[in-house]
Amino acid sequence: MKSAKHLDAHTTITIIGLGLMGGSLAMALRRRPPIPRLIGVVRSQDQIEDAQQRRVADHITTDWKDAVRAADIVILATPVRTLIRQIHTIGPYLKEHTLLLDLGSTKTQVCAAMEKLPPHVQPVGGHPMCGKEVSGLAHAEPDLYEGATFVLCPLKRTADWALDLAHHLVHRIGAHPLLLEPEHHDRLVATISHLPYLLAAALVGTTHHIAQQDPRVWRVAASGFRDTSRVASSDLNMMLDILMTNRDAVLDMVDRYLAELGELRTLLERGDEGALRFYLANIKNLRDAHFGKRRT
Amino acid sequence: MKSAKHLDAHTTITIIGLGLMGGSLAMALRRRPPIPRLIGVVRSQDQIEDAQQRRVADHITTDWKDAVRAADIVILATPVRTLIRQIHTIGPYLKEHTLLLDLGSTKTQVCAAMEKLPPHVQPVGGHPMCGKEVSGLAHAEPDLYEGATFVLCPLKRTADWALDLAHHLVHRIGAHPLLLEPEHHDRLVATISHLPYLLAAALVGTTHHIAQQDPRVWRVAASGFRDTSRVASSDLNMMLDILMTNRDAVLDMVDRYLAELGELRTLLERGDEGALRFYLANIKNLRDAHFGKRRT
Repeated sequence: MKSAKHLDAHTTITIIGLGLMGGSLAMALRRRPPIPRLIGVVRSQDQIEDAQQRRVADHITTDWKDAVRAADIVILATPVRTLIRQIHTIGPYLKEHTLLLDLGSTKTQVCAAMEKLPPHVQPVGGHPMCGKEVSGLAHAEPDLYEGATFVLCPLKRTADWALDLAHHLVHRIGAHPLLLEPEHHDRLVATISHLPYLLAAALVGTTHHIAQQDPRVWRVAASGFRDTSRVASSDLNMMLDILMTNRDAVLDMVDRYLAELGELRTLLERGDEGALRFYLANIKNLRDAHFGKRRT
Repeated sequence: MKSAKHLDAHTTITIIGLGLMGGSLAMALRRRPPIPRLIGVVRSQDQIEDAQQRRVADHITTDWKDAVRAADIVILATPVRTLIRQIHTIGPYLKEHTLLLDLGSTKTQVCAAMEKLPPHVQPVGGHPMCGKEVSGLAHAEPDLYEGATFVLCPLKRTADWALDLAHHLVHRIGAHPLLLEPEHHDRLVATISHLPYLLAAALVGTTHHIAQQDPRVWRVAASGFRDTSRVASSDLNMMLDILMTNRDAVLDMVDRYLAELGELRTLLERGDEGALRFYLANIKNLRDAHFGKRRT
């Protein structure tokens, strides 16, 4: 094994994409020693200068081929469909025993693409469960991953040492690894991430129709609406990639949701206050138990 | 006109209910002079002691009759169905020209009850568009109303001076008055408050079903889910009162929402990425325009 099994000052990590997620990952790795050598790959000269000013990495370049050739670990931090294309082309440029990890929001298609990588590469699918509704390096922060669950999807071909290295990387940025099968991951995130996005979008859409009759509806909206609708402000390209690569799971979840809301509607229509109270008390207890009562 | 037209140190204000809203209102009125005389009405001796320790009002009592007899302004800060009952009994105990304002979350049934008050009382329906998902005096804060829209629903019988006094009170606590008809108010809040509550509840319900297959779904949930579901943790009694007193408007809004989400589902099912992008970009622009991109 020639590749780094530990993450130390001699490890070279190349991050492709220095947006919110890639930029924050670089910052997290530079919080405390041993600090690996970091190479950042961006798309334009402007982005090089911006990333250099922010001192996100040791070397910033638009030349991805050279950047990945030098790497012990390559991290793909671009939107899902972009990184799937990158997986299809990157293989021949990676040196033996390179760990290839991605941060994509869906995993089935990513891991399927990873299966086709040349055998000298060690791929692991990844998905950190953190983020913001704003994107770009300007919003990156070193503590973004702190305390977050970081899903890892090893392939059957993935060597134990490579998965260990991925675990080590996850711990180094303050996150907690969780091993999941790609399809199962996609189903869980359809529930807790992609569905909420569509719900928030449909809420803003419904409000927009009412606003066309009376725009004061926006003035009446308070913090509850702002929070419920927040994820509707998410990065559009990222969300389209997610929806298009996880369509079946999302559609299934929307159907379950429509049924659930329909049942709740029936309780209200019937004016069955006892049943409504029972349902809503259970919901409140569940949410309080998992997320606490306080707004943080 | 014997009643106070201004709010000064000689004005006596009785607040019935010192929970989150009533307690915060009392605190807001005590931020700077002229500070009116404040009487707080609570239900138990324990609550008297708690409110006294927090110095929320000059006098705290469980004797609502004496408390409202002394008042120039009475503010009802209890859940909607409780305050409707209070409106039905309070009239004979109010002195001439007392301004009676409520903070209830729905207004049609409240204002209908106010119509039946004795003619010597000056009623104005009110609804401050602020709050938290936590309740109780322990969570009250003097700045809760700062910058919030405060809906006022005067009745036909309401004298100009009484509405002016209500406006003055709203400004004193840092809020912005907005005049609306009760039925119209209820329709707008069904859109931006009661609908989001049901959406959040159904999201938690759907997630609960998935969690019964794999409880790790809660671990995968991040800040997006937490925010989208936040209002599902709202006070149960308050929400039941709201739903039961605004049922028709809420049902209509749920139906509009189900149609909206259904359309969005169709775009996704078709894989019509162009249409999906157009829809979601418009939604994002709307939300960004009305609430800003940043999480605050």
